[in-house]
Amino acid sequence: SSLLPQPSVRPDKASELKTLWKKFYKVASPYWFSEDKDQARLRLAAVFALTLATTGISVGFNFLGRDFYNSLANKDQEQFTKQLFYYLCAFAGGIPFFVLRDYTKETLSLRWRSWMTKYYLQRYLKDQTFYKIQSQSIIDNPDQRLVDDLSSFTGTALSFSLTLVNATIDLISFSNILFTIYPPLFLVLLLYSFGGTAISVFLGKGLVNLNFLQEKKEADFRYSLVRVRENAESIAFYGGEQNEMQLLLQRFRSAFDNLTELLIASRNLEFFTDGYRYLIQILPVAVVAPMYFSGKIEFGVINQSVSAFNHILGDFSLVVYQFQAISSFSAVIDRLGEFDDLLDNNIFRDPSDTVDEIELTYQSEMNSSLLDTNGSIKSQPNQKRLEIEELTLQTPTNGTTLVHNLSADVYDKDHLLIMGPSGSGKTSLLRAMAGLWRSGKGKITFYLDPEVDFTQEKSDTQENSGKRGDVLFLPQRPYMVLGSLRQQLLYPTWSATVEETTPGGSNIDGSPPLLIREDGNEKPTTDDLMRTLEKVCLGHIADRFGGLDSIHEWSSVLSLGEQQRLAFARLLLSQPKLALLDESTSALDEANEAFLYQQIQSAGITYISIGHRRTLTKFHNKILQISTADPKSNERNWRIEDVDAQDSLYGRLNQKEVPSES
Amino acid sequence: SSLLPQPSVRPDKASELKTLWKKFYKVASPYWFSEDKDQARLRLAAVFALTLATTGISVGFNFLGRDFYNSLANKDQEQFTKQLFYYLCAFAGGIPFFVLRDYTKETLSLRWRSWMTKYYLQRYLKDQTFYKIQSQSIIDNPDQRLVDDLSSFTGTALSFSLTLVNATIDLISFSNILFTIYPPLFLVLLLYSFGGTAISVFLGKGLVNLNFLQEKKEADFRYSLVRVRENAESIAFYGGEQNEMQLLLQRFRSAFDNLTELLIASRNLEFFTDGYRYLIQILPVAVVAPMYFSGKIEFGVINQSVSAFNHILGDFSLVVYQFQAISSFSAVIDRLGEFDDLLDNNIFRDPSDTVDEIELTYQSEMNSSLLDTNGSIKSQPNQKRLEIEELTLQTPTNGTTLVHNLSADVYDKDHLLIMGPSGSGKTSLLRAMAGLWRSGKGKITFYLDPEVDFTQEKSDTQENSGKRGDVLFLPQRPYMVLGSLRQQLLYPTWSATVEETTPGGSNIDGSPPLLIREDGNEKPTTDDLMRTLEKVCLGHIADRFGGLDSIHEWSSVLSLGEQQRLAFARLLLSQPKLALLDESTSALDEANEAFLYQQIQSAGITYISIGHRRTLTKFHNKILQISTADPKSNERNWRIEDVDAQDSLYGRLNQKEVPSES
Repeated sequence: SSLLPQPSVRPDKASELKTLWKKFYKVASPYWFSEDKDQARLRLAAVFALTLATTGISVGFNFLGRDFYNSLANKDQEQFTKQLFYYLCAFAGGIPFFVLRDYTKETLSLRWRSWMTKYYLQRYLKDQTFYKIQSQSIIDNPDQRLVDDLSSFTGTALSFSLTLVNATIDLISFSNILFTIYPPLFLVLLLYSFGGTAISVFLGKGLVNLNFLQEKKEADFRYSLVRVRENAESIAFYGGEQNEMQLLLQRFRSAFDNLTELLIASRNLEFFTDGYRYLIQILPVAVVAPMYFSGKIEFGVINQSVSAFNHILGDFSLVVYQFQAISSFSAVIDRLGEFDDLLDNNIFRDPSDTVDEIELTYQSEMNSSLLDTNGSIKSQPNQKRLEIEELTLQTPTNGTTLVHNLSADVYDKDHLLIMGPSGSGKTSLLRAMAGLWRSGKGKITFYLDPEVDFTQEKSDTQENSGKRGDVLFLPQRPYMVLGSLRQQLLYPTWSATVEETTPGGSNIDGSPPLLIREDGNEKPTTDDLMRTLEKVCLGHIADRFGGLDSIHEWSSVLSLGEQQRLAFARLLLSQPKLALLDESTSALDEANEAFLYQQIQSAGITYISIGHRRTLTKFHNKILQISTADPKSNERNWRIEDVDAQDSLYGRLNQKEVPSES
Repeated sequence: SSLLPQPSVRPDKASELKTLWKKFYKVASPYWFSEDKDQARLRLAAVFALTLATTGISVGFNFLGRDFYNSLANKDQEQFTKQLFYYLCAFAGGIPFFVLRDYTKETLSLRWRSWMTKYYLQRYLKDQTFYKIQSQSIIDNPDQRLVDDLSSFTGTALSFSLTLVNATIDLISFSNILFTIYPPLFLVLLLYSFGGTAISVFLGKGLVNLNFLQEKKEADFRYSLVRVRENAESIAFYGGEQNEMQLLLQRFRSAFDNLTELLIASRNLEFFTDGYRYLIQILPVAVVAPMYFSGKIEFGVINQSVSAFNHILGDFSLVVYQFQAISSFSAVIDRLGEFDDLLDNNIFRDPSDTVDEIELTYQSEMNSSLLDTNGSIKSQPNQKRLEIEELTLQTPTNGTTLVHNLSADVYDKDHLLIMGPSGSGKTSLLRAMAGLWRSGKGKITFYLDPEVDFTQEKSDTQENSGKRGDVLFLPQRPYMVLGSLRQQLLYPTWSATVEETTPGGSNIDGSPPLLIREDGNEKPTTDDLMRTLEKVCLGHIADRFGGLDSIHEWSSVLSLGEQQRLAFARLLLSQPKLALLDESTSALDEANEAFLYQQIQSAGITYISIGHRRTLTKFHNKILQISTADPKSNERNWRIEDVDAQDSLYGRLNQKEVPSES
């Protein structure tokens, strides 16, 4: 169900150009109406002004050249030296304009890229779009689109529009020169350039497609290499080098074949383009010569008409000369347009989709007894944290049902253990609670901290992660952030302060401010962090790795058990109202497991854990047993039991209470 | 301890150029002496020949131009039309040479890149270099070096050498034209170009460094994006979008700042280069004009000297015009040179390193009783598989001791369980057995299949993974390959056949053959695979995902428990002599765990597992207890106990024997 536009035979030229233009406009326009629009438009105006100036200057150079050569032709030495002097002054005055034009253009395109990167990153990370893209593999290589495509889009878009503007001004200013000399020359010029453009578009039509595939294949090859890097230890353990080699070479091979085809196609196009370019050198002279021979025009005028001809023809033959650049640019527009539509989320809300979706709401912690739906005032002393009503959960890809209308309540200080055979959908239940999966029907309501107001409109990423501020999910795979030990511990509740924007207040080029506002609750100090590390028996790793701020590849240097203990440290630091632990002690020995659970129990955190081990039961007072759903029948495949007090407190397996830890 | 050349102030120009040239030669030379050298040298010769031809043709065009304009100046219409006709024929004949020159150059650089990619990939995957690079983070972004740097190196190296050759021929052929016209012009030319080169090198010296950093920062930004993609689910669970956003923007910011500096530096250089380029248009005319005014030369000669002057000056000013390209090319040479040295392994064997290293050897399965070192003939009926003698294991980064002189033997059909608190070095012990870690002292010897001969020299990756053919490691993190379900099951013992090289035998451009020779033992058929899937209760996933050959993001669609069961399926398929399981049932419920262990027991596989759970003891007959090593004292921190028969067979916890699985 990949939404990639199948690179099949294109419908027809005109409509295709229209869609391309629409996509281009959709991707290009937001920046120029964004909060940075004044600076953007100001700089764009500056670039256009400078372009106008440079064209004027080159026209000036053209006239200077004519008089310069005339003075030579008339053997007038005194006039020649004067002309030479004028030429030099023109250079000295003119060149800075050319350089500044390029520089302003480059800085504007960098600024545009910086704004676009932030804009795309925000939408990529919002509402777990990055998760949906990855788990349902909707488009390929989002990282390439965010880095390479964005960078080449902003650069090429600007230089193309400048070339277009340049060409039009050039066209107007030189046409009248040509007209004054010899009108038919203009006609020859039109015929020659339109004919050339038509032929090159015909010859090169395969190129757009080949370019599109080339970018994708290079990115796929690059992705498989990064994967080898990410899973280096597992591959080394398996000794799977040979298989990896085969896969890598296979992907390189397909990029190699595509590039070979691309080279052949552009070679054929080149035969035509080179011919077109060389012929221009003699075409105007051949056309104007008869007038010169009949004495109607002086020799200098030939030179002038030749250079005017070249100017105008250059403008008209943009498509011919830039064909390769245009075809790869249109591939970039395709990829970014697709990514842009996806990020606008209209891809996910596919109308034909089943209407019902799991309803996930966060409500403030009003006294739950009033809220009880079936009318009776329940004398529930403590506060309800989570309420699941008739939840039927299905996998988003092929809709197999994992859980049949589950209803369960979790109260403050409750400890629920979810057990079941592997593959029965335990983690998927957590995915539904985290809002990652919405496929199925039923209602999930969280009752959390009153002062965190969830109702007001969520504007950007802070609000999003804020709304879950009080619920913390510990995923099955411990996740180590790129950065220092301090950042590991502060993740995800606080973001380690980014060193302030470059000293001296506003950034030199006024690039958009990148600092994210701090979170509400104040940040733990270094000794808080050290104390928590001690609490999870990780006190030794701080000095083993040179303090809290040393940077290492944590996912490689720490053992899986140490990483899981670090995750618990995060939990103890952020003190959430409700924690959901997805087999987060699978790599820990029983003593460490008991120790950690006691820590979060004494911290008064309500938690739901997923696990397999008998040993876990003693840390929980309720168990939700899930069995693998039988797709045919839809009767309940779950039951909730209370763990009898005796079992949970002393637990049959209770050997060593506290680990003989250093 | 990163080996990155600190981009500090460069020592001095000359020695720096010398090292750059040496690095360039070391990276560039292997291909031209490789098995593909004939084709390579043939094509290189062809490219040079074509370049010579094109220079000859452009000299021809120059003369044609002179006569063409002379006929105009002398108002000789009849001569003019003749010249026009010659010009057209010259075009028709000449242009194919230019196009073919570029095409042959492009295909040669693609061929070179393809050979280099395979050459670097082989060394990258050999002797676990890729693992060492990642775990000790020695160089940054190996993936970028393998893809972008290699591709730009081969392309730029070829076009630079061609430009150099072109420039020299051009220089020789046009110099005598210039000499015949006006020798002093040659002197002016020399002064002008050398002066220009010196000034631009001075102005642009910051650029090389900035380019080096720019590539690194863009790659770092790209890497952090790929990491978000790889850990999408964990990040979504944590709700860590805001932290990820901050990290991503931080990395983009540093690329942004560096690029801003780069733009300013190249702007300043551009002021000079543009001035230099425009001045050339009038310099030759100004120098030659006096001779023309004094009647010594005809007018056409001016045009000829101007174009000859431009030709030669163009050759001399290569450095000035190509400065940006040269500086980024030197950054690529730096990065590839560094990577090349690393791959030659001379980085790891750091002489100052402690001499002793853990000795890891694989020996064939001779009757072990003869081999017993302490002289007594042990009446050991069955075969010894693994012998560890006085092993002291230290971490490679900071040398903390994890295990103090461990000695242990594992015999055929033995089942050893390694237990110990998390972080005490259990996985590191396995790393030593797999040869990933060599830091420490002691001896590890495997006694394996006699017919696999390990003594002969290991040439390339097949032999390497072959030598361990009989030992299979199941890493803690289940690793899913990119590809179909079939490829998951065949990994790592067999490589799924790559569809044969492009139909029609040899590949069109004779790119080096990429197919890897098949392994010894024959490949399991589809029903073998299906039967094994049933054995690990994963029968249902084949049809759930559309058969064995459908391709999915397996690490996202399968639950961790399912992935671990898939790893067991690999084990049952490859039937190794010895299996080492690193907590490979951590995500499985006890029933599944028992079921899988029974499977490998009945398959008669000797195995060593690392685990925490009491429930594991009943599948093992020996336990190796490791406690966290006390860095001060170096007395033994391990002991081996026999699991008493009663305990292992019936096991106190033995509730459900076979899981109530579908």
